[in-house]
Amino acid sequence: MCKSIPTVDGAEIQRRLHELAQISVLPDRLWRPSYTPQEGQARRLLTSWFAQAGLSTRLDAAGNLLGRAGGAGQVTLIGSHMDTVKGAGAYDGTAGVLCGLAALQTLLAHFGPPRAPVELVAMVEEEGSRFPDASFWGSRSILGQADPALLSCRDEAEVTLAQAMADAGFDPARLPDARRTDLARYFEVHIEQGPVLEHRGIQLGVVDTITGLGTLAVEITGRANHAGTTPMDLRLDALQGAAGLVLRLPGLARRFQNATATAGSFQVFPGSANVIPGRVSILVDYRAPDPDDLARLGREIDQAAHSLEAEGYGVTTQLRMSLPPARLDRGLGALLEQCADELSCSSMHMISGAGHDCQLFAGQVPSALLFLPCRDGRSHCPEEYAAPEDLARGAQVLAAALYRLAWQET
Amino acid sequence: MCKSIPTVDGAEIQRRLHELAQISVLPDRLWRPSYTPQEGQARRLLTSWFAQAGLSTRLDAAGNLLGRAGGAGQVTLIGSHMDTVKGAGAYDGTAGVLCGLAALQTLLAHFGPPRAPVELVAMVEEEGSRFPDASFWGSRSILGQADPALLSCRDEAEVTLAQAMADAGFDPARLPDARRTDLARYFEVHIEQGPVLEHRGIQLGVVDTITGLGTLAVEITGRANHAGTTPMDLRLDALQGAAGLVLRLPGLARRFQNATATAGSFQVFPGSANVIPGRVSILVDYRAPDPDDLARLGREIDQAAHSLEAEGYGVTTQLRMSLPPARLDRGLGALLEQCADELSCSSMHMISGAGHDCQLFAGQVPSALLFLPCRDGRSHCPEEYAAPEDLARGAQVLAAALYRLAWQET
Repeated sequence: MCKSIPTVDGAEIQRRLHELAQISVLPDRLWRPSYTPQEGQARRLLTSWFAQAGLSTRLDAAGNLLGRAGGAGQVTLIGSHMDTVKGAGAYDGTAGVLCGLAALQTLLAHFGPPRAPVELVAMVEEEGSRFPDASFWGSRSILGQADPALLSCRDEAEVTLAQAMADAGFDPARLPDARRTDLARYFEVHIEQGPVLEHRGIQLGVVDTITGLGTLAVEITGRANHAGTTPMDLRLDALQGAAGLVLRLPGLARRFQNATATAGSFQVFPGSANVIPGRVSILVDYRAPDPDDLARLGREIDQAAHSLEAEGYGVTTQLRMSLPPARLDRGLGALLEQCADELSCSSMHMISGAGHDCQLFAGQVPSALLFLPCRDGRSHCPEEYAAPEDLARGAQVLAAALYRLAWQET
Repeated sequence: MCKSIPTVDGAEIQRRLHELAQISVLPDRLWRPSYTPQEGQARRLLTSWFAQAGLSTRLDAAGNLLGRAGGAGQVTLIGSHMDTVKGAGAYDGTAGVLCGLAALQTLLAHFGPPRAPVELVAMVEEEGSRFPDASFWGSRSILGQADPALLSCRDEAEVTLAQAMADAGFDPARLPDARRTDLARYFEVHIEQGPVLEHRGIQLGVVDTITGLGTLAVEITGRANHAGTTPMDLRLDALQGAAGLVLRLPGLARRFQNATATAGSFQVFPGSANVIPGRVSILVDYRAPDPDDLARLGREIDQAAHSLEAEGYGVTTQLRMSLPPARLDRGLGALLEQCADELSCSSMHMISGAGHDCQLFAGQVPSALLFLPCRDGRSHCPEEYAAPEDLARGAQVLAAALYRLAWQET
């Protein structure tokens, strides 16, 4: 049955991904944070593509772009996010949006409107690259889990999330309107962002579990002073304390299976060559697929930070974000696996080490996540790459599953 | 004889210092980098004070503010700098300018014009807080040592020094005009920026030697990648390498007497919480009063950085700035000491761990540097403070020395 669906054009998906990747707030590399004019530009481009495919488009109160096909009823939602990290590649997030679009475009052109409604979503602020506290802001809004307190969190330019939304034309007070209660299930296609599929030569990954995630903000305070006149023994150099903490992270993570700990955001103040650092601000990203391991790892990183107080440093820690591990839907996973088999695509079950909007949906509706191989496992960097044939396979398998759920059944 | 000079008003000096410190490019703390509108504002304020004191003012081609008293002849130059580091206090640099001003104001009011000309200078870009490669740009220009190649160095906003000068109304092509060949000697008053005078309860420091200084730019390159999907054992995290290097600096500095090594500027890229750092840029400031120690310390820091290549990191190092230790003039030092004695001020000989414009002048004319105590030895931070009576003592002793050299003798 799946074979009756026309072939999706992977080269077209890739061409559109690269066109989207031209839209950045930085001149030299890709960064498309949420609620910026550049995100608006990307959204308008996506809107035109959604419309060409025959979808009726709208923006929800959070700024998520939605494209719908079919009449009333419980909705099968597919999609991913349109924001990027700083210095991103062209595939993380948008590959899922455009694979979903290619699948729907093909199904609508060949079979007409579905019996049950299907919607494609391009979500805001999954990465938290502008508002680290507000990761998954788009999916949280759809699920009614967007904490209004986060509206007052600030970006590096001290702009609040509420102000950023307003500047982009979205009324923060209307955020609750974004909530959906009519969802039947959620599908997301995403690049693996790791080396496993490529390493094993397997074409698709059906994700069983998405690893749990915590973000701990650590601030270490020493004494800023003149770099030339303060004897080495009379210093309280915040960078010395922070460097010691950073070097402990790998050992802490290795105590737990498939766990990671990373200090990706690390800022030194005041930041002049001839001034001893008085303060260091760190965001520690830690992850583990087991909920108990995740909690213990977070506690141990917090203890490691506070142990610097014994050396005289001031230390504050704050858990900025915490996401439990998510078990995805076995039935939808089996369906994706079966469609892959019928299309003669090799597939494997796997754990996702990355957080995805899908893990938020998994808490409320049956959800599935399909991974595509990416070159060298590189992601969150300009070298990020997925081959056209792999993009096509993801879209094709998704199309087959959607066909069965929304065109054939009901 | 010194006692016949009226008493300088230290409270007035401090009031003016705090008025100047209000002029900053940052809303919340003091940063007054060179060739900014704020520096222009500070310069205009200083110009009005210079004029009130009876000095004839002019700007040289580098943007240094000069105020002159007396007729033709070899000039006794006194002064310091008007730029500040990021997050500075109100005393570093400007205290020397305003102590010099108070001394001249008193002498001119009481004794009229000097027999030999005296000039007061407020110099640009001593700190290199905007253009780290161009520290001492003002004094280098006066001494004909400003390297035109540095005109193409850039600030954090990618503005070149040449452009910054032009924006401030100074023609980089005319820089050689700033050179002076008519200087007889140079005096600088400065806060100690260290704890020695306060700790020993001594009122003034006569500096014999200014420590040598090097600034080594170190760039460490690893592999940026996704923080969640890259196993700990498959990472090349640039921050891990950089943290290891930073922790080695204190041990390297302690091998040499009165040496320091500081990583005050430490930037992590791309800088997102969920991205493994791919690159770290460090400016290592190292200092030693002995020329051989300085050279060896620089080599050992450079070797420590390159040793990271064995772990797979890319490492580049570049010596951005190098200043040999400077021996100051024994005769002028003895004069300051004698004036201090006659004024019943306690004084001691000392080494300066900080770089000062004075060390550039010392290479060409007899030069002297007089240190004032500062509270807790704090400097390059908002807590920086010198008491009115200490400011007054510095101005009084300087006035006594100037009286003997420019009013009494010739």
